[in-house]
Amino acid sequence: MLGRTYDAQNCSAARALELVGERWSLLIIRDALFAGCTRFGDFQRSLGVAPNILTARLDGFVAAGLMERRRYSEHPEHYEYLLTGKGRDLAPVIVTLSAWGDRHAAPHGPPILFEHTACGSEIHQQICCAACEEEIRNTDIGVRPGPGLLPPVPPDDPAAGRR
Amino acid sequence: MLGRTYDAQNCSAARALELVGERWSLLIIRDALFAGCTRFGDFQRSLGVAPNILTARLDGFVAAGLMERRRYSEHPEHYEYLLTGKGRDLAPVIVTLSAWGDRHAAPHGPPILFEHTACGSEIHQQICCAACEEEIRNTDIGVRPGPGLLPPVPPDDPAAGRR
Repeated sequence: MLGRTYDAQNCSAARALELVGERWSLLIIRDALFAGCTRFGDFQRSLGVAPNILTARLDGFVAAGLMERRRYSEHPEHYEYLLTGKGRDLAPVIVTLSAWGDRHAAPHGPPILFEHTACGSEIHQQICCAACEEEIRNTDIGVRPGPGLLPPVPPDDPAAGRR
Repeated sequence: MLGRTYDAQNCSAARALELVGERWSLLIIRDALFAGCTRFGDFQRSLGVAPNILTARLDGFVAAGLMERRRYSEHPEHYEYLLTGKGRDLAPVIVTLSAWGDRHAAPHGPPILFEHTACGSEIHQQICCAACEEEIRNTDIGVRPGPGLLPPVPPDDPAAGRR
């Protein structure tokens, strides 16, 4: 976990990266989402990552509510790590990162194709306008302040009267 | 740059993370895409990141073809950093990360809203099936091997005959 590295950033991308921006984090999520990995050994075989780092990441995901730890053996005691809904919601992040890599860093073509499980057809990610319902080019995206930019001081904040 | 951390991973998400997975990288790209940052000082004011880290990231982006360095002043010599098409293509990654953060880590609502510059309406990211043309839920995405999974040995590879 990055923890509070991006603390000064009131930004949802930064908050996402606080939880999944550390080295190996998104590849662990990828393997949980798409490679069927649930056990410590599954992730380690797939990634070749040092055990202490893998332990730290899995424990961090459990603490952040991205995974649940469930015991699958009593003697000896063993646990598996299952994505929660919050963790599974990272699927579009993996798909979008992969689409960029396929386009710009895959000289032999995409190593992995994402498909719609119901019909086996390829999927694609797109950004659409809520009004026009058109697909939007990357150069046509702007930003404006949202409701969370300057959160109001809560009325029962004991420090508020002293400001 | 992570460089060769994920070298054993034949995966486009891993390759993307080799280029933009280091701490601060995606927030620098975010500021270049959506906050109009082009100069060293712009990025530093926005992010509060240590100058040596910012220098390393910007130099890395230039080396990786995500940004171009252009001189905007001769005396004294000053440069600005402009996204290339390859860099701008990371916009969906920022949008998707932000959407996840808005949903799961924005207690006061989205701090920033992304909009379609042509009409000012909000945008949303979605994953669609190429055949059904339906929007796909995160739980309905599967994977299969793609053409780049096991790249063929090039015919003029001098080591090929010795294998």
